Amino acid sequence: MSELSQDQIWMMRAIELAKLGQYSTKPNPNVGCVIVKDGQMVGEGFHPQAGQPHAEVFAMRQAGELARGATAYVTLEPCAHYGRTPPCAKGLVEAGVGRVIIACPDPNPLVAGKGVQILKDAGIAVVVGMCQQEAHQLNVGFLKAMATGQPYVRLKIASSLDGRTAMASGESKWITGSEARLDVQHWRAISGAVITGIETVLADDCQLNVRQLKNLDSLEHVVQPKRVILDRQGRLALNAKILSKPDSVMVMGPFRQELADLGIVQLQIQPLSILLQTLSQQYQIYDVLVEAGATLSTAFLQENLVDELISYVAPTFLGRSARAMLNADFDRMAEQLRFKLIDVTQMGDDVRLRLIPSQETL
Amino acid sequence: MSELSQDQIWMMRAIELAKLGQYSTKPNPNVGCVIVKDGQMVGEGFHPQAGQPHAEVFAMRQAGELARGATAYVTLEPCAHYGRTPPCAKGLVEAGVGRVIIACPDPNPLVAGKGVQILKDAGIAVVVGMCQQEAHQLNVGFLKAMATGQPYVRLKIASSLDGRTAMASGESKWITGSEARLDVQHWRAISGAVITGIETVLADDCQLNVRQLKNLDSLEHVVQPKRVILDRQGRLALNAKILSKPDSVMVMGPFRQELADLGIVQLQIQPLSILLQTLSQQYQIYDVLVEAGATLSTAFLQENLVDELISYVAPTFLGRSARAMLNADFDRMAEQLRFKLIDVTQMGDDVRLRLIPSQETL
Repeated sequence: MSELSQDQIWMMRAIELAKLGQYSTKPNPNVGCVIVKDGQMVGEGFHPQAGQPHAEVFAMRQAGELARGATAYVTLEPCAHYGRTPPCAKGLVEAGVGRVIIACPDPNPLVAGKGVQILKDAGIAVVVGMCQQEAHQLNVGFLKAMATGQPYVRLKIASSLDGRTAMASGESKWITGSEARLDVQHWRAISGAVITGIETVLADDCQLNVRQLKNLDSLEHVVQPKRVILDRQGRLALNAKILSKPDSVMVMGPFRQELADLGIVQLQIQPLSILLQTLSQQYQIYDVLVEAGATLSTAFLQENLVDELISYVAPTFLGRSARAMLNADFDRMAEQLRFKLIDVTQMGDDVRLRLIPSQETL
Repeated sequence: MSELSQDQIWMMRAIELAKLGQYSTKPNPNVGCVIVKDGQMVGEGFHPQAGQPHAEVFAMRQAGELARGATAYVTLEPCAHYGRTPPCAKGLVEAGVGRVIIACPDPNPLVAGKGVQILKDAGIAVVVGMCQQEAHQLNVGFLKAMATGQPYVRLKIASSLDGRTAMASGESKWITGSEARLDVQHWRAISGAVITGIETVLADDCQLNVRQLKNLDSLEHVVQPKRVILDRQGRLALNAKILSKPDSVMVMGPFRQELADLGIVQLQIQPLSILLQTLSQQYQIYDVLVEAGATLSTAFLQENLVDELISYVAPTFLGRSARAMLNADFDRMAEQLRFKLIDVTQMGDDVRLRLIPSQETL
C-alpha cells in the first residue's frame, strides 16, 4: 500500500475498531466509527452485538459537544431507518458533525444512499468509498447477502501434500497441526452457519462449534454458528455429540418428530443453491463455512457455490490408496476447477492457502 | 535474525559475493572473501569458476599492501593444498593479514583444520563458525558430499491442490505458471545433475537443461547439469531432443554401442543409493535434482534418498481420476511420509513449498 492520507489513517482506525465485533455482531455487520476534531480523536466506537447501539452512537456519546463541526469516519453507510435504534444518519446531523467519510455504501438496494441523502440534505459534506476494499472485507457475507440474497460460502479442506484427507480406512487424526486447527475456529466464529454432511457427523462425532479463539480469553460474547447437517436419509443419531446444544443445530432431511421435540430446526430437502438462499433469507445466515467430506465438498465446488476455498496443506504424503479430496473425475485439462490464490500463510508446520474461483479461461 | 555484529555484516557480504558464482563454480564450491582494514573494505572476491583463482586470491590482489594487518572474512576454510592454485592459507600468511574469520570449516575430514593450522602457526588470530548456517546453504551439496560421499538430493514435484500431476490421458500442460517454471531452472542450474526416468523422456521429449535464469542475461558461464536418464530397458530413442547435447547426457541402462558412439557416458544398472554415490564419487556431482514421474519420485522418497522436497502447488483441482503424485499405497497413518516445512513462497499464481524429511515420530 502506498502512503496513506490522514483521512485514510482514521478510516483504517475505524476498520480496526469494527473488527473488535467480528465474533459477536452476527447477523449484524461489523461497523466502526471514529470522530475527529482538529486532528484529534474525540470519540470512537464499534457495533458490539445485535441489540446494542451502532458504532456511531458510541462515538457520538464519547465526543459529546466536541462532535460539532467534527469529521466522522464510518466503515458502513449510516442507517436511515428506525430499527432497534433510531437512524444513525439523523443522529450525526443532530450531533452537528461537519463532514462524514464513509467506506462502504449500504449494500441493500432499497436503502442504499438514503443515509447519505439525509446527511447531504442537512448540508454535511459526504465522501463515500474511502478504503472501501478493506472495509468490504469486514462484512463480505453481509454485503453479498444484502446485494444478492445469497450468503458468502467458504469451503475448508485439510489435506496432505498428495491431496488426501484420510487413509482408506477412515483413519485421519493429526493430518494438520494445532495452529491450523485453531485457525479453523476463527472461520467458524465469523460464520452464521457451518454446513456438514451426515457422513462426517457419523464418522467423527464432531460438534463443529467454536471452542477456542486466538487472542480471546473468553468466548462469552461469541455468537456460535448454527451447525447445519445434511441428512437426506434421517440417519442422525439422537445421542450424537452435536445434539448436546440442539438450539444451534439445523437438519436438512425428512421430518422427524424426535428432532422437533428437541427444538431442532428442520429444513425440507432442497438443492444446495436453494438451501444457501434459505439460510440467508430466512435465517439471516450470511457467512457459511462448509466442513464436509469429499462428496459434499465436491458438490459445492462443481455447482460453483464456493466463494472462497481455505485449504490447509500438511507436509506429508498419505499415498495413493488414501482418500481423495474430491469425488469428481475429469477427462481433460479443460474441465479442471481452477482458482486464484489470494493468500499463503505458514501455520505451524502446515500451510494455509486462500483461493477464490478463477475467472480465467485456459 | 537479531542485530548483527560488524564481523557478521562483513561475513554476510562475503556470502553474497560467493552467491555470484552459484551457477558457474561446479564442481567447486561457492566461496566469497572480504578483506577489511580500519573498518573499510580494501579487497573482495569470489570464486567464479573451476580453473579460476579462489576467492581469497581476488580479494588479496585488490587489497595489495593494505592486506597487511587487515581482517579477512572467508565463507569456507582456506585451502591448505597445492591444487590448480597454491594454498590460500599460505597466501593469507604471506599477505600479512592479522585476523581471519571463517564461516564453514573444510568438510573433508582429511584436510579439515589444516588451513586453520597454517594460519595459527603464523600467529594469525582465527575464528571459525561465524554465520556458518548461512554459509552452509551456499554449498549444501558440496559439503554433504565431502563429509559423506553422497550428494544432496532435491526432488521437484509440481501438482494440483488435489495432488495430481496430469490427467489420466497424460495431458499435463500448464499446471503451474511461468514463474514457477522459471524457478525450476534455478534448481537445475545449481545442480550437477538432473535425474529423470525414461518414461518422462518418452512422454515429454524434455531436455531438462537450463534455458533461462532470473536476473541473468547470459547463460555463457552457467555450468549445465548432466542429464541422467534411468533407462533399464534401453528404450531411449536416438532422435530424442535430450540427445541434441550428448556430452552432458548420462544413461543408466544396458550397454548400447550407438550411445557410446555419441560419446554418452553409460552407467551400469545399480540401486538408486549406489547410483547417487557413483555420481558423487566418480563424477563430482554433489547436487542432484530429481525431475521424474510418480514411479521414480516414489522410489527416491521411499528409499529415504531425498534431502529436500521442492513442491509447486498449482491452484486447481484435476479430479480423482487424474494421475497421483505417488505410486505408493499406505494402509495406516503411521506409514505416512512426513516432512518439515522450511519455506513457503508464492510464485505467481502458484505456491512453492520447500520441505525436508521430518525426524519426528508420530
